[in-house]
Amino acid sequence: MGPSPVCPAAVSLNQDDLKKIAAYKAVEHVKSGMVLGLGTGSTAKHAVDRIADLLRQGVLKDIVGIPTSTKTYDQAVSLGIPLSDLDSHPVVDLAIDGADEVDSGLNLVKGRGGSLLREKMVESVSKKFIVIVDESKLVKHVGGSGLAMPVEVIPFCWNHSLRRLVGMFAYAGCIGELRMSVENGKPSVTDNGNFVIDLYFERDIGDLNEASDAILRLPGIVEHGMFIGLATSVIVAGEEGITVKTKVGSEVEVDSFSYMI
Amino acid sequence: MGPSPVCPAAVSLNQDDLKKIAAYKAVEHVKSGMVLGLGTGSTAKHAVDRIADLLRQGVLKDIVGIPTSTKTYDQAVSLGIPLSDLDSHPVVDLAIDGADEVDSGLNLVKGRGGSLLREKMVESVSKKFIVIVDESKLVKHVGGSGLAMPVEVIPFCWNHSLRRLVGMFAYAGCIGELRMSVENGKPSVTDNGNFVIDLYFERDIGDLNEASDAILRLPGIVEHGMFIGLATSVIVAGEEGITVKTKVGSEVEVDSFSYMI
Repeated sequence: MGPSPVCPAAVSLNQDDLKKIAAYKAVEHVKSGMVLGLGTGSTAKHAVDRIADLLRQGVLKDIVGIPTSTKTYDQAVSLGIPLSDLDSHPVVDLAIDGADEVDSGLNLVKGRGGSLLREKMVESVSKKFIVIVDESKLVKHVGGSGLAMPVEVIPFCWNHSLRRLVGMFAYAGCIGELRMSVENGKPSVTDNGNFVIDLYFERDIGDLNEASDAILRLPGIVEHGMFIGLATSVIVAGEEGITVKTKVGSEVEVDSFSYMI
Repeated sequence: MGPSPVCPAAVSLNQDDLKKIAAYKAVEHVKSGMVLGLGTGSTAKHAVDRIADLLRQGVLKDIVGIPTSTKTYDQAVSLGIPLSDLDSHPVVDLAIDGADEVDSGLNLVKGRGGSLLREKMVESVSKKFIVIVDESKLVKHVGGSGLAMPVEVIPFCWNHSLRRLVGMFAYAGCIGELRMSVENGKPSVTDNGNFVIDLYFERDIGDLNEASDAILRLPGIVEHGMFIGLATSVIVAGEEGITVKTKVGSEVEVDSFSYMI
C-alpha cells in the first residue's frame, strides 16, 4: 500500500480511530428497510452511532434494530433508533459487531464484554454478519491473543463447571477463572443472570467444532464465546489501510484498501 | 413369573406403590460412606425417604447427599440427611432418580418436574446412576409416551427459541409450547431462573446424540431433558414384579424378579 494523503503515516491513528474506520466501512452495507443486528462493545458502538447519524440525515429509512445487549439497547434508545427483538423479527438482514479475536478462517472469539449469548442468538440468524475489528484482534488460532475465551455458565456449582472445562482442555494448557466484577468484587453477572468463566489456552485447542460440542454437552454450560462459521465478512482497520476478508464457500477472499481516496 | 404370595394379583398395587417398590430396591445399593445423588420427583422422593429411614436406624452411616433441586434439598434437610454440593464433592458414587421415559437403550427423558439441569449436572458425574420407574414409563423411543420432552431456555426471546426448536424437528411432527405455572398462570421458572419449552414428537426423532448436539448448538438453549447413555441401570416396578435392566458395554441385560420372597 502506498502513502495515504488522507491519513499519512505522520498522522498516527489510535486504536479507537481504527475501530471507527472499520465501523463506518461496515455501515456502508446498511440499506433502508433492513432489520439490523446491533452489536455490543467499543467498536460496535461506533457502528450504532453511525447508523443513528444516517437515520437523522435521512440517508437511511425504515431501519429496525435488534440490540444484542441491554447496553446497546440503551444506546440505541437514546439515539432514537427504532428497535424490536427476535420474537417479532426472527430473521435479521445484517448484523454488525466487533470481536475479541478473529482467526484466519473468520472464526471469532467474542464475549469479553459479557454479551456473547444474545450476540450469538442474533448473529446466528443473520443473513449477513459483518465483523469489525482493528488489526490487533487478528490471531493465528482461537486463544492466540493470550486473552480469555469466555464461557457463560449457570451460577449453580460454577466451580464444578470450571473444573470440568479446565480438565477438558488440559491438553492445551488451559487455565480458567470466574470473571469478577471490577465494580463490586462479586462474580460478574450476564444480562441473563449467569456467570462467566474465562478460559485461557497456552496452545491451539484444535478442531473448533469438536471443542464447541464438547463444551455445550457439559450440563451447566449455557454458551461459549467461539463464533464458528458465523461471520460472512470481517473488516480489519489497520494503520496502513482497511482489509476486508470475505467468506466465499469454504475459502476466504482478502481485499486490501489503503486510506488514499 | 409365578404367582406372588406377598403381593398376589388380587392385591392390586397402585402406581405409587410401584414407585416405592422401585425406590426401595434401588436403595439396597446404597452403602455407608457414599456420596449420593438425590433425585427429584414423586419416585425419587421415596428413595430419599428410605435413605433417611436407614440413617435413623443406623443401618447406613456417613452418607453425603447431593440434592438435584431445591425441592429435594428441602426434603433432605427436613429428614436430617447431611448434604453437600458438586463444588465440594465433584464425584458422586451413586445417583438414584426417577425418569419420565425410558427407552430400550436406557436413554431417558427427564425434567417434566422442571429440575433437568441440576439432575443432569449430578448424574453425569455419578459412577453409578440407578433409574427408578414404574412400568408406565417404558417407551419404544424418546417422546413415545406422547408426553413432553422439556428444554430449558433462557427467558430472553424464548418464542424465537421455541420456533427454532420446532423447526429443527419438523420431520418428526414436532409441536412445542412454553410451560406455564399452574399456580400463577405465568411462565414456569426453573431453579436457575430459566423457562421450559415442552416439545412433543409425533414420530421417532432418530439418532439421539445428533438431536442432542443440534439442540445444544442453538444459542439460548441451556439444556434438554434427554439423558443419553447416563443410566447404568433401570429398576422397573410392574404389577407382576421387578425388572432390572443393566448396561453391560453397549448391551442391556434384563433380570426379572416376581414379588415372591
